[in-house]
Amino acid sequence: MSIVMRDILRADPQVVSRLSKAGVATVHEAQGRTGCLASYMRPIYAGAQIAGSTVTISAPPGDNWMVHVAIEQLREGDILVLAPTSPCDNGYFGDLLATSAMSRGCRGLVIDAGVRDVRDLTAMGFPVWSKAVSAQGTVKETLGSVNVPVVCAGRLVEAGDVIVADDDGVVVVRRADAEAVAAAAEKRLEAEEAKRRRLAAGELGLDIYDMRRRLAEKGLKYV
Amino acid sequence: MSIVMRDILRADPQVVSRLSKAGVATVHEAQGRTGCLASYMRPIYAGAQIAGSTVTISAPPGDNWMVHVAIEQLREGDILVLAPTSPCDNGYFGDLLATSAMSRGCRGLVIDAGVRDVRDLTAMGFPVWSKAVSAQGTVKETLGSVNVPVVCAGRLVEAGDVIVADDDGVVVVRRADAEAVAAAAEKRLEAEEAKRRRLAAGELGLDIYDMRRRLAEKGLKYV
Amino acid sequence: MSIVMRDILRADPQVVSRLSKAGVATVHEAQGRTGCLASYMRPIYAGAQIAGSTVTISAPPGDNWMVHVAIEQLREGDILVLAPTSPCDNGYFGDLLATSAMSRGCRGLVIDAGVRDVRDLTAMGFPVWSKAVSAQGTVKETLGSVNVPVVCAGRLVEAGDVIVADDDGVVVVRRADAEAVAAAAEKRLEAEEAKRRRLAAGELGLDIYDMRRRLAEKGLKYV
Amino acid sequence: MSIVMRDILRADPQVVSRLSKAGVATVHEAQGRTGCLASYMRPIYAGAQIAGSTVTISAPPGDNWMVHVAIEQLREGDILVLAPTSPCDNGYFGDLLATSAMSRGCRGLVIDAGVRDVRDLTAMGFPVWSKAVSAQGTVKETLGSVNVPVVCAGRLVEAGDVIVADDDGVVVVRRADAEAVAAAAEKRLEAEEAKRRRLAAGELGLDIYDMRRRLAEKGLKYV
Amino acid sequence: MSIVMRDILRADPQVVSRLSKAGVATVHEAQGRTGCLASYMRPIYAGAQIAGSTVTISAPPGDNWMVHVAIEQLREGDILVLAPTSPCDNGYFGDLLATSAMSRGCRGLVIDAGVRDVRDLTAMGFPVWSKAVSAQGTVKETLGSVNVPVVCAGRLVEAGDVIVADDDGVVVVRRADAEAVAAAAEKRLEAEEAKRRRLAAGELGLDIYDMRRRLAEKGLKYV
Amino acid sequence: MSIVMRDILRADPQVVSRLSKAGVATVHEAQGRTGCLASYMRPIYAGAQIAGSTVTISAPPGDNWMVHVAIEQLREGDILVLAPTSPCDNGYFGDLLATSAMSRGCRGLVIDAGVRDVRDLTAMGFPVWSKAVSAQGTVKETLGSVNVPVVCAGRLVEAGDVIVADDDGVVVVRRADAEAVAAAAEKRLEAEEAKRRRLAAGELGLDIYDMRRRLAEKGLKYV
Repeated sequence: MSIVMRDILRADPQVVSRLSKAGVATVHEAQGRTGCLASYMRPIYAGAQIAGSTVTISAPPGDNWMVHVAIEQLREGDILVLAPTSPCDNGYFGDLLATSAMSRGCRGLVIDAGVRDVRDLTAMGFPVWSKAVSAQGTVKETLGSVNVPVVCAGRLVEAGDVIVADDDGVVVVRRADAEAVAAAAEKRLEAEEAKRRRLAAGELGLDIYDMRRRLAEKGLKYV
Repeated sequence: MSIVMRDILRADPQVVSRLSKAGVATVHEAQGRTGCLASYMRPIYAGAQIAGSTVTISAPPGDNWMVHVAIEQLREGDILVLAPTSPCDNGYFGDLLATSAMSRGCRGLVIDAGVRDVRDLTAMGFPVWSKAVSAQGTVKETLGSVNVPVVCAGRLVEAGDVIVADDDGVVVVRRADAEAVAAAAEKRLEAEEAKRRRLAAGELGLDIYDMRRRLAEKGLKYV
Repeated sequence: MSIVMRDILRADPQVVSRLSKAGVATVHEAQGRTGCLASYMRPIYAGAQIAGSTVTISAPPGDNWMVHVAIEQLREGDILVLAPTSPCDNGYFGDLLATSAMSRGCRGLVIDAGVRDVRDLTAMGFPVWSKAVSAQGTVKETLGSVNVPVVCAGRLVEAGDVIVADDDGVVVVRRADAEAVAAAAEKRLEAEEAKRRRLAAGELGLDIYDMRRRLAEKGLKYV
Repeated sequence: MSIVMRDILRADPQVVSRLSKAGVATVHEAQGRTGCLASYMRPIYAGAQIAGSTVTISAPPGDNWMVHVAIEQLREGDILVLAPTSPCDNGYFGDLLATSAMSRGCRGLVIDAGVRDVRDLTAMGFPVWSKAVSAQGTVKETLGSVNVPVVCAGRLVEAGDVIVADDDGVVVVRRADAEAVAAAAEKRLEAEEAKRRRLAAGELGLDIYDMRRRLAEKGLKYV
Repeated sequence: MSIVMRDILRADPQVVSRLSKAGVATVHEAQGRTGCLASYMRPIYAGAQIAGSTVTISAPPGDNWMVHVAIEQLREGDILVLAPTSPCDNGYFGDLLATSAMSRGCRGLVIDAGVRDVRDLTAMGFPVWSKAVSAQGTVKETLGSVNVPVVCAGRLVEAGDVIVADDDGVVVVRRADAEAVAAAAEKRLEAEEAKRRRLAAGELGLDIYDMRRRLAEKGLKYV
Repeated sequence: MSIVMRDILRADPQVVSRLSKAGVATVHEAQGRTGCLASYMRPIYAGAQIAGSTVTISAPPGDNWMVHVAIEQLREGDILVLAPTSPCDNGYFGDLLATSAMSRGCRGLVIDAGVRDVRDLTAMGFPVWSKAVSAQGTVKETLGSVNVPVVCAGRLVEAGDVIVADDDGVVVVRRADAEAVAAAAEKRLEAEEAKRRRLAAGELGLDIYDMRRRLAEKGLKYV
């Protein structure tokens, strides 16, 4: 039952880079308001905005053995995604593992559990989105799997899917959809820029989006 | 059932300004330890301290249509307060809505749900106190109401009430009580300043507040 | 039932200082992965790292009277630890109490409840680890105890035990174990430094820790 | 700040009785999908369905003194509603208080906190909807108020409003709206009965409510 | 983006029946300790034990329109599984929908949200496993999808997968694995029966499972 | 670090029996409103009321190996108390372990984690108070300890302490205090019986406990 998938397909780095620039909220809209991980996933420090192909880890509660196994599978530009097999907020990951992951080009960690050594990770510039910060460590006794599909913070993530993460949280984009989503996201950004100027100038969304008639039809009353 | 109240009464801007300076904890004490919203309401960035008259929004879960309607009702110095009709942590509000609200003089948002684009909002200096940060967007399909009384994070807020918000959270002051509360808050600040000096000099609260006798009467034993 | 223990034993300040340098995660490992308080205990600002002997407070929900009593028991280098007798997130502690505690040499507060005036506390450099930030104040009507054993955020803390706290959270070290734990922590730090260099150079934990054989024995399959 | 309102207006007992028969879900629909208390309010035993005019209690955390004060204000058919001034799950109420309340005609308790002696309360047939069951008792040290407006489990409740409670939870009906809501609820019950027969016979809601066209217009695709 | 998959593959009814008899805990073990939905999914009444092929519903928060669409897709022996696109505890489902679903042979509902009319559902013998019980109703304004893959209470569920549910909660079995899991579950039940007799007679698990040597090797000390 | 304490002191069975009759709420009051475990500890079925000396288990998250070790230490009338070393809701315990525990005279289980096979446990009459019900099983890979002090649901429990549990939850009584607490509890029960009769006859707590004067002194106003 415990396996490591070695040859996974990854998204095109150019596409990943375009998704990174768009950011989480725009990517989420661009793919039809889907893909956001649960809002309890928070960055350990403000300001990071990354995207990358995922190497996934399914790990038992309180056991980080598989992280070591996963790090060997990392390539330049990857993001680690860890989901425990049952809820756990232990600190699975700290500065030593981050040192190792960074040496292989890893851009960050998304973990539906806890992380520790956050001061060191911040100093190293290794961003983490986690459910918890916890110094409570783990053991290395029970196997899990690497690069199998996992459900992380309420969303299915498959190895090679693209993760985009910033101060708003985390969104996953299916590898096969990445290019189309990037294109749609860029279109949204352009459209938003135009709207931003009009709104800043004092025009109302009610008028820009032509909402007044539909509001009246639905029965909104002004008193 | 869906209405927009247009001509609401607001608090005196001078009084609002005095409440703003006092801050949340002092205002809460000054009105008899009441009015604090639930402690899960957290600022998206540290350091903001605002007060303003409220424009309230009652919105369905996952639907931010009424925010557009509410923005038209904003006047200089107002604060938006949004309460979903059932619990929801979706990101109802982002940088475009903030741009629009700021262009009408809005000082910030208090939302018993989620907010997104927090990096942009931080850069814009538009403060938000929210239950969640979430990139998960909303739809525009179902009506709500604007400037009706709402329960936000456990407290009743009526349109025109004064909201004070800072790093400690959010407190609501009834419009009719605002002047008296501001006066009481200023009195407390003065009294606190004197106590601070004595405490810094090493005097004990036990002596300043003359607690020793009452503690003994209640039965406290030193061993 | 309400008592104040006056003459408590404290840990050796030299040992406390060594624990402070080691930090929470390392201390936790050094004492056999035990002693971490629950991960919901978060610092009010990033970057503080302290250790000290504890003065403990057992307080009723919503009543901070005993904090005044406890402050008199503080000595240079102590840390206050407050546990409510039932769950409560009220703001028991603010800038006036911090002023008083600092004047007696207190290094910080660990509170399984709420704290307020966090902007002032941050400016004063008085670190707090808490379950909540809340402007909701408390009363002074019901007794509690000082320097009795308390369960704080899931861990037993006795007066005179050493608390270590940093961005990862809080760990408690029994007073009698403090010296041995400090020694073990320092040994870990040295060993980690050597490993950090090897990991940074690209060696894998799988090889450094000789895990491959044991993983294979447990049944891990590469595909 | 601590007051007891003695002469409150109550709803017409006939109307209360009609609301009681309709039950919570129907009453909630009949007043425009509003008024439900938070879903964490659960009955201590299954099968009770009550309605009554409310006597409200605002109480400090961990202090049940005001319950004794409120019981004196009870009349035949009333329901006690208790909201703590900050979150608390202590057991404010047990079999002795229930004995006293029942002797004055009280029909039950709705409490945004804890209750205890649930085995006795069940045996007595005194229904309670609460946030928690907890043997942790309270003190009698700090005043609160009786028959002031309170926010209970997320909803405003005023003295004399009607509470309806059953296995689905709790809904509040403004006193002034009670008759209209009762009439609307009865109309819904009749309409539902007809629909229930058609649905039981195998007709689909898609056809009974004529949804197919609107679904197609919104873009639903069958594949 | 909103689709209804009509011709889904279902599991063999014989296999479903065998899984139903095994129950949740045994099925979970039989498939390698995987597939359990989050433990917050609780039955509305004790004693039900069902299995069936799933018809899945992805629905917006607070909108149950798709339930009507899904009911048309039900066949004898199916189980409805509803996952909201963001967290919501509204009561999406009540006795009228249950009447309709039962008329088409539906065995029950698994919903990562709220349910209502629980007294009626209990009387009808229509079992539901839900995150919440809530009378708070929903609207019918926004589309979702039927028979697409959903993440329900932390697990991926695809249309036609087998759901097993009882007092312990809910487990999902991939359709393709159903027969193998049923066979493994039956083997476990037999083995457990033998062990139960030995344990009842006073033998210890330490001896039956030959644990003493391995415990000693790992370092367990008796004092 | 992993030990099993074999020769623990237990409370006098007569005293345990007296505490059992008093029940949780009364015992809690009788020992000065202390000792209640957190209110999230709920019985798997209603109506059980037990007391016994504790055999404690400290177990890693998701690993129930130590339960087997602990069962060997059980004697007639004992209660198992399990605390995981970090939060976990896995089902550590089911009907096979219960069969084994019952064969050694165990009266029940108190577990700050999950339990499974609740239908079987209910049929067997083996009561459990737990944080969760979960079919999600555990492994047997990592040691813990038996009969060491543990913090269970927020309270310190030492081997041989008395646990009392009923529908209100769980309370722990220090072994050394058991006799005095039993005597105080019996005194309370007598006093309550007299008060119950007076309250049932319509007398008010305000008068029985002579509260009116003190309420007035504190400032309560009737309007």
